[in-house]
Amino acid sequence: MKILVLNCGSSSLKYQLFNMDDESVMAKGLVEKIGLGDSELTHQPQGKDKIKISADIPNHGVAIEMVVAALLDKEHGVISDMREIDAVGHRIVHGAQMFSASCIIDDKALADLETVSELAPLHNPPSILGIRACCEKIPGVPMVGVFDTAFHQTMPAANYLYGLPYEYYEKYKIRRYGFHGTSHRFVSARCAELLGRNDAKIITCHLGNGSSLSAVDHGKVVDTSMGFTPLAGVLMGTRSGDIDPAIVTYVMEKEGLDTAAMNAVLNKKSGLLGISGVSSDMRYVEEAADQGNERAKIALEVFRKTVVSFIGAYAAEMNGVDAIVFTAGIGENSALERAAICANLTYLGVDFDAAANDCRGKEVEISKPDSKVRVFVIPTNEELMIARDTKALAESVK
Amino acid sequence: MKILVLNCGSSSLKYQLFNMDDESVMAKGLVEKIGLGDSELTHQPQGKDKIKISADIPNHGVAIEMVVAALLDKEHGVISDMREIDAVGHRIVHGAQMFSASCIIDDKALADLETVSELAPLHNPPSILGIRACCEKIPGVPMVGVFDTAFHQTMPAANYLYGLPYEYYEKYKIRRYGFHGTSHRFVSARCAELLGRNDAKIITCHLGNGSSLSAVDHGKVVDTSMGFTPLAGVLMGTRSGDIDPAIVTYVMEKEGLDTAAMNAVLNKKSGLLGISGVSSDMRYVEEAADQGNERAKIALEVFRKTVVSFIGAYAAEMNGVDAIVFTAGIGENSALERAAICANLTYLGVDFDAAANDCRGKEVEISKPDSKVRVFVIPTNEELMIARDTKALAESVK
Repeated sequence: MKILVLNCGSSSLKYQLFNMDDESVMAKGLVEKIGLGDSELTHQPQGKDKIKISADIPNHGVAIEMVVAALLDKEHGVISDMREIDAVGHRIVHGAQMFSASCIIDDKALADLETVSELAPLHNPPSILGIRACCEKIPGVPMVGVFDTAFHQTMPAANYLYGLPYEYYEKYKIRRYGFHGTSHRFVSARCAELLGRNDAKIITCHLGNGSSLSAVDHGKVVDTSMGFTPLAGVLMGTRSGDIDPAIVTYVMEKEGLDTAAMNAVLNKKSGLLGISGVSSDMRYVEEAADQGNERAKIALEVFRKTVVSFIGAYAAEMNGVDAIVFTAGIGENSALERAAICANLTYLGVDFDAAANDCRGKEVEISKPDSKVRVFVIPTNEELMIARDTKALAESVK
Repeated sequence: MKILVLNCGSSSLKYQLFNMDDESVMAKGLVEKIGLGDSELTHQPQGKDKIKISADIPNHGVAIEMVVAALLDKEHGVISDMREIDAVGHRIVHGAQMFSASCIIDDKALADLETVSELAPLHNPPSILGIRACCEKIPGVPMVGVFDTAFHQTMPAANYLYGLPYEYYEKYKIRRYGFHGTSHRFVSARCAELLGRNDAKIITCHLGNGSSLSAVDHGKVVDTSMGFTPLAGVLMGTRSGDIDPAIVTYVMEKEGLDTAAMNAVLNKKSGLLGISGVSSDMRYVEEAADQGNERAKIALEVFRKTVVSFIGAYAAEMNGVDAIVFTAGIGENSALERAAICANLTYLGVDFDAAANDCRGKEVEISKPDSKVRVFVIPTNEELMIARDTKALAESVK
């Protein structure tokens, strides 16, 4: 069974074609600047050279056509007939309360999904465009939606309701949703496998340009650090994470900003970049700190502090923790950050293995054999998770 | 030595006269509706009947005159000469970065204090009015300022800087300040006494209508839950505590609110009141929950969850905790909330003593003798703390 996985942005489209017999990636690629002119397709067939094709790509429909053409191409393709694509899995950022699991996107589901767009006006509409384009260009195969929010839908009300007038929840659906759910699900499931038990209390730390932590008990999310939007939680590349909410209105007044401009500050000019003034990229901030840049040093400390405090908070919310997982760009690759974070966790019984930690981008246990709390690096693979869900659902409707 | 302690609001003035020989309260009282017409002084001399005096009290100067008159009154007074008042201690909400300890308020300090008013426009100006009024009406005695923020000034930069553009810190002094510092200082110092050591890691939970937690290591604040303003942190009576900051602009747009109206929602219509719809008062919310009100139940759960998560976060930030202290209205009086919070802390080694916990408003250890982490109820006494600081500083300038 072959599954095409799509991740559509407003002007971009990422894809991977999986052979689910062995879960291998047959090809992957990216379409950029859709509708902006100067568009480009980058296509990487497994074991062959990467190619780039510049073309006028006015919309997601044309982008899908080009992807299919690239997959079928005699020279650079990996399949010989479009009918080899058995199903398409779509990454969708927001499923709201409606979508608590991956599902077949039929007309009813698509209509439901339209109603969610207001909660994710930047992210959901491109996914819907992508689904519609696929229905037209790759007809007759199941479309599956896999939601960033779905895994978090097990949170109890006390962990998803904010301390706001209750009517905002009723009228506007303002609550904690959480994001990166597909990643948290992937690594927490893998962690449970490594632990050999399904009843563990696991804290998953997805640390990248966007970062979130989740508390997972018995395979279900109890709490997560992102909130109504992906702005909340720990310090990120350009996002503030949690701040005193009174600062929002204070800065608006002081700087004369409207709500859109304020949101842009919080989402794009804050975080590591805002404090350090150096970069939103952890590697450059670490480098600057290493060279003595004081603000870069503080930015790192704030990042670590916020991660440490969420780990502590989740240990308390679950009344204990069996394992901690690091994943995503920083989590998988920065031995420095992992070491700094774990240095604060000896009180939980974390016996950190500095030698094992000295690695990048591979699955490894970084706590010592007798550590009371086990700590792992587990590379995440959201695309594979989407492919697996898509396969399961496609088989179920055969 | 006799010390008058004042706490001035915009239209109110609370006072206590201490005899510092034995730290007893000689009299206390309250002036209400200053400048609003229909003003009233309530005066409670120790061991005598409480009296109420209605009068036209147009400003804080007249209020101070009335307080002094009540203290000197033949029938209801407790001193016979105004010169018995050796010093006046003023509670001041915000000391910013300028005031990291209590201090004598001379002309220079008063000028400095004026510059802080912008950060606490509702709270600091009445304190300044009170100080000026006292200088005029009780001349020749030292005036001492005791700041809610001062105890928190030991926080490291990583714990007081937000993940915002750094220039906001430079231009507007936007950072975490923390409040309730006098209370956290009082109960953490008492806890250290009870532990018999000054190097302990202590988490102080000041839980009242306004609530905050502090992490205190070696007698110094490492972190605290309130922030730039007293809105941040855990769920409070009418305050939201921390929320995804993106909600602020979202609600402003949806409800058509300006910054002032939004602040009013977050500070006055949120918290226990907002979720439960019942009350901002924990007692009524507990009562409603007990009678089956679902939203009241959720409000309690959110309150407990936020307190538990801050305790967990602070245990992680300090890499351990030796003692936890409950204080203030809820902390001292609600055995139910203390028990619910401590139920999540067995992972830290808290061995909760349910029998000892069954008490209100008195100092008691509520963990069992062998508990790894000791848990105390310690009634707070900010006025006494202010009186002690005032005495020490007044003696130092004699």
